[in-house]
Amino acid sequence: MKFTKNPKNLIYGRHPIQEALDAGQEFDRIFIQSANKSESLKAIRQQATEMGINIQSVPIEKLKRLTNANHQGVAGYLSLVQYYKVEDILSLAYEKGELPLFIILDSVQDVRNFGAIVRSAQCFNVHGIIISSVGGAPISGDAIKASAGALATFPICKVDDLGEAVNYLKENGLMIAVAALSKSDFIYKVPFDQPMAIIMGAEGKGVSSHLTRLADIEVNIPHSGNFDSLNVSVASGIILYEVTRQRKTSS
Amino acid sequence: MKFTKNPKNLIYGRHPIQEALDAGQEFDRIFIQSANKSESLKAIRQQATEMGINIQSVPIEKLKRLTNANHQGVAGYLSLVQYYKVEDILSLAYEKGELPLFIILDSVQDVRNFGAIVRSAQCFNVHGIIISSVGGAPISGDAIKASAGALATFPICKVDDLGEAVNYLKENGLMIAVAALSKSDFIYKVPFDQPMAIIMGAEGKGVSSHLTRLADIEVNIPHSGNFDSLNVSVASGIILYEVTRQRKTSS
Repeated sequence: MKFTKNPKNLIYGRHPIQEALDAGQEFDRIFIQSANKSESLKAIRQQATEMGINIQSVPIEKLKRLTNANHQGVAGYLSLVQYYKVEDILSLAYEKGELPLFIILDSVQDVRNFGAIVRSAQCFNVHGIIISSVGGAPISGDAIKASAGALATFPICKVDDLGEAVNYLKENGLMIAVAALSKSDFIYKVPFDQPMAIIMGAEGKGVSSHLTRLADIEVNIPHSGNFDSLNVSVASGIILYEVTRQRKTSS
Repeated sequence: MKFTKNPKNLIYGRHPIQEALDAGQEFDRIFIQSANKSESLKAIRQQATEMGINIQSVPIEKLKRLTNANHQGVAGYLSLVQYYKVEDILSLAYEKGELPLFIILDSVQDVRNFGAIVRSAQCFNVHGIIISSVGGAPISGDAIKASAGALATFPICKVDDLGEAVNYLKENGLMIAVAALSKSDFIYKVPFDQPMAIIMGAEGKGVSSHLTRLADIEVNIPHSGNFDSLNVSVASGIILYEVTRQRKTSS
C-alpha cells in the first residue's frame, strides 16, 4: 500500500490523536511506535482498541515515512468518509420499496480496484458496500479519485466481523452469493431478482473459506481461463450489470 | 503518462536508434529533441515518419527525464509486443468457424485501464484489439502488469487510421457497435450473436464523432447516472460479458 506523505487526513502527536479520539472522530488506522512504552501511548492504544480502530504497531522508520514532523510515536489517518450501519442501510432500502443489494468486499486491498468498485456500485444502485475494519484498502485520496468521487458520498459500512454481517443479512431475508472459481452456476442462470448481497474476494486469494461456507450460492462469470483472470473491479461490474439486467427485464 | 526511468525497452543515441530502424524493429514512440537540427536526427525523423512510427518533438528536459545517459537528442521505446494485422486476425477467426469479435480503442490513454481491457478481452475470447498508432496508452511494462500478462500474447493490431479499420471490418460483414451515452439501445436488447466490433472511447471524451458516425449502432449499459460514471475497463468488461452471455444462451 502506498500513502502520499502528509496527506490532509494524517494527524500525529499524542495530544492531537488523543483529542480526536476523545471527540469520537473516526480513524481509518492508527500507527503506534512499537518500541515506545510511554504511558500516554499506552492510553491511546487502549482507547483506540475499545473504539474498534485498526491499530498497527510499527518501527519508528514507518512513522518517519509518514511525516517529517515530530510524531511522538503515534500518527493516524482520519476517515475521509462517514461510515454507515448495515441495519440503517437495509431499513432504508426496504422503506423505499427497493430490493436490497449489497456488496461485501473480503480483503480487496488495491486502492484503484476499490475505487472502481464503489463507482460501479453507485451506477448500479447498490445500497451499500460492506468492508472489514482490518485488511482492506485504505479509504485514501487515491481511492476517492479512482471512484470518480463516488466514495465521498456512497454508503460504506465498516464492520469488525464480515461473517456476522453476512449472518445478519441472511436473517433479514437476503440471498448471499459469492463469486467463485468453479463448480458454480453462471450468473445469468441465477435469479438475482431478489434481496441479495454479493461477496467479492481479493485478486489471487479469492473469498475466504469461512465466508464462502456462509453463502447461499456460488456464482461464476462465463469465460475462458480462471476467474482470477478477470480484474476484481471488472468482475464486480459484470455481476452488478447482470443483477440490473435481470431486474429490468423481469419487471 | 508515467514512464519508469530506463526501462529495458528504452534505447537512445543516434546509432542505436538508426540501427534499430534499419533492422525494421518496431517502436512504440520515438522522442527527438526539438531544438537539435543535426543532419543525423533529421534522417532518423524522416525514416521513422516513413515507417509510421509515432514521433514526439520534445525539449531536452524530457529526454533527461527518460535517461541519465548520453542520448544525443533521441530516445525511443521499442515495442514490447508483436503487432498483428487486422486482416490476418479476421481470417483466422473465420477459419476457426468463430463469430469474429473485435474491440476498437479510441484514445484510451490510461495504462491500467488498457491493461485491464486486454485481460477481459482474453477472458471473453475477443479475437483482437485495434488501437491507433497515435494517442493511445503506451504498451509499457505497467500495461503488461495490469493485463496480468495477457498483453504479452494477446493479438493487438496497431493501425494509422481507426476509421479505415472500421470500414474494412464493415466491408467484411461485421456489425460495428459504439458505446454511447444516450439515445441508444441497452446492450441486452441488441443482437450480439453476429460478427461484430465494439468501439470504446476514452473516459470523459467518449468515442470521437467521426468514428461514431461510421458505426452501425450505438449501445448503452443500463445504469443510473452518465455512461462516463463507469470506468472504461469495467464498461468494456460488461459489454464483452453480454456478448458472451447472448452467444452462450442462443447456441
